[in-house]
Amino acid sequence: MKLGSLKHSQKKNGELCVISRDLTKAVKATHIAPDLLTAVENWDKVSSDLGLIYAQLNSGEIKDSFVVNVEEFSSALPRTWLFADGSAFIQHIKLVRKARNAALPETLLTVPLMYQAECGHFLAPTESIPQRDFAHGTDFEAEVGVILKDTPMGVSPEEALKKIALVVLINDVSLRGLIPDELAAGFGFFQSKPSSALSPFAVTPDELGSNWKNGRVHLPLQVRYNKEFFGCANAGEMHFHFGELIAHAAKTRDLVAGSLIGSGTVANEDTSKGSSCLAEKRTLEQINNGKPSTPFMKVGDTIEIWMESPEQKNIFGKIYQTVKVHP
Amino acid sequence: MKLGSLKHSQKKNGELCVISRDLTKAVKATHIAPDLLTAVENWDKVSSDLGLIYAQLNSGEIKDSFVVNVEEFSSALPRTWLFADGSAFIQHIKLVRKARNAALPETLLTVPLMYQAECGHFLAPTESIPQRDFAHGTDFEAEVGVILKDTPMGVSPEEALKKIALVVLINDVSLRGLIPDELAAGFGFFQSKPSSALSPFAVTPDELGSNWKNGRVHLPLQVRYNKEFFGCANAGEMHFHFGELIAHAAKTRDLVAGSLIGSGTVANEDTSKGSSCLAEKRTLEQINNGKPSTPFMKVGDTIEIWMESPEQKNIFGKIYQTVKVHP
Repeated sequence: MKLGSLKHSQKKNGELCVISRDLTKAVKATHIAPDLLTAVENWDKVSSDLGLIYAQLNSGEIKDSFVVNVEEFSSALPRTWLFADGSAFIQHIKLVRKARNAALPETLLTVPLMYQAECGHFLAPTESIPQRDFAHGTDFEAEVGVILKDTPMGVSPEEALKKIALVVLINDVSLRGLIPDELAAGFGFFQSKPSSALSPFAVTPDELGSNWKNGRVHLPLQVRYNKEFFGCANAGEMHFHFGELIAHAAKTRDLVAGSLIGSGTVANEDTSKGSSCLAEKRTLEQINNGKPSTPFMKVGDTIEIWMESPEQKNIFGKIYQTVKVHP
Repeated sequence: MKLGSLKHSQKKNGELCVISRDLTKAVKATHIAPDLLTAVENWDKVSSDLGLIYAQLNSGEIKDSFVVNVEEFSSALPRTWLFADGSAFIQHIKLVRKARNAALPETLLTVPLMYQAECGHFLAPTESIPQRDFAHGTDFEAEVGVILKDTPMGVSPEEALKKIALVVLINDVSLRGLIPDELAAGFGFFQSKPSSALSPFAVTPDELGSNWKNGRVHLPLQVRYNKEFFGCANAGEMHFHFGELIAHAAKTRDLVAGSLIGSGTVANEDTSKGSSCLAEKRTLEQINNGKPSTPFMKVGDTIEIWMESPEQKNIFGKIYQTVKVHP
C-alpha cells in the first residue's frame, strides 16, 4: 500500500490519500482517517480498509480518483512528534568524521548514533531548501526512514520491527558549517539540522517485497545532483537494522505513533556507488586530491532522491529540491 | 489568563480549559479551540475570547465551571512539535560539567547551549516518573519554559519575545548515568533525556505582572524533594533571556506554533538558594565533603516543583511526581 498527504491551506497534517502502485493515481481516504498521522495512530484499525482502497485503485475500480501531481503533495508525513535520526552506515560516519578531524566513537559498531531532529514542519518534497548564508555549508543527506505505530519503552529489536507501519525516503538537510561548533559545545546538533523533506509517498514494507528483509531496505538509493549522477548506494548495507535503531530510541521513552526513525546517510564501502551527501564526496576528494573541490550547495543547486524497484519502477516518488535564498 | 488541558481518553491533545487565577475553578473552552495546541496555533484569533472567559470565571459569572482536581489534568500542553531546551543558567552548567569533569564550552557566555528534547508525550504533572534501571541515575531538573506562536526563521531576540504566548514550568527528567557515554559519542542527549512533565497550567506573561521583565521570570522556583526543602533559586538569574533562546532556536528553522523553549535548570550563584536538580547538589557535596552523599532518585522518591507570586499564591499549579518501577 502507498499513501500520501495532499496539501491543504488549513490542515497542517494534510489530507490522507491512497496512491496507486505506479504513482499515477490518487484518491482521498479522509473518510477513513483525516490525515496520515491519525491513520498511523489507529493503524491496526484502518490499515485493512486503506488496503482495500489501494487494491481497487490499482485495478481501476475507483471512480473519483485523480491524476497525481506531486506539487500538490506535502511530505508523506507533513509533521510529526518525533524524528529520531540514526547513523547506521559506518562508511558515512568514517568519512564525515575524517572530514572534520573527529575521532570515531569507541562504540561505533555496538551502539547506534542518534539525535532528535526537527519534525514540526517537513519541507514538501519539491519545496525549495532555504539558505540564509552560504557559509552555513548546506548539504543534503539521502536516507531511508520508517514510521512507527505506538512503540513501548524497552521494546526489543525483534518486536520493534513489528511496529513499523510505513517506509519513506528522507533528505536530511544539514548545515556542515555549523556542525563543528555545535558538537564542540557538547549538546549535539541543533541549528546544523534544519527542516528536512520526506518522499511524497510512504509505503508499507510489503511493497518492497523480498527487498525488505532483516529490517533493511535492500535497494539502491538514487541520488542526482544538479542533474548528474551522484550516488546509488545500497540501503541494505546498514550496520544496525531498523529494529535496532527503534530499540535504541525506545530505551528510555515510549515512541508515540507517527515517530519517524531515520537510517542516517546511506553509504557503501564501494566508492563506485558514489555518495549520498556532499560531505562524503568532499572527503574522498580530500583523500584523493589533497583538497575538496565540490562546494556545498549554492542557490540554484538541485538535489533529486528516489528509489526504484528491480523493475526500475519508482517506489516512493521523488524528492526534488532546489536551494533558494531565504528572505 | 491561565489555561489547562483536561485529560481525555480519545483526545491526545486533551481538552482546552480556562482556569481561574486562584487555580480553584475551571471551565471547558473547547468551543473556542478544541485543545491548547490548536489555541496557540490560532492565538491572535482566540486569545481575546479566552481572556473574556477568564475574566468571567474569576468574577464568578460562569455557571458551568467545575472544581479543579489536578489529577484530571495533563501537562498544560500534553504534547507538541518541538521542545528545544536551553541551558541559560551559567551556574548550572558550571556545576554539572564539574561533576562529570567536562570542560566548559568556549562560547559559554555568548552562545546558548540547546538540544532538542522529547515532546511527543509529556508526563502528566502528577504522573509517576518511570525508572527502568536505578543505574540510569534518574534526576529532576526544575525549569521555566515558554510556548510560542508561529515564529519565523531568523527572528531577532527582541521580536522573539513578542512570540511568547504562554509560560509554564517543566520537570526535565534526566538520566545522569547515561549522559557521559552519549556526550562522548558526539551526538548529544537522547536516551538520557526521557519524557518530561510540565506544570498543570500555562499562564500568559501578564499574569506574572512586573516579575516578567527583560524576557525572564523574576521569581523563585520552589523545589521540594521527598517533602523537604531543596531549592528556591530565582529564575530571573538567566544569563540568556527567552528572546535570545528563541532566536538561537530559530536561526535556521521556522518554529511552529506550540514550540516549547526551556530555560534549562534554574540555578543561582548563591548556594543558600539550594538547587533545582540532584546533580548540582551532588557536585556541591563533592566540593565540600570530598564525595557526593545524595543518591539519584530511587523508587518512591518524590519531587515537587511550583512557583509562587510575591503574595505566595501558586501560579502554575504544582508538578508532583513519584518515581516508580517501569514494568
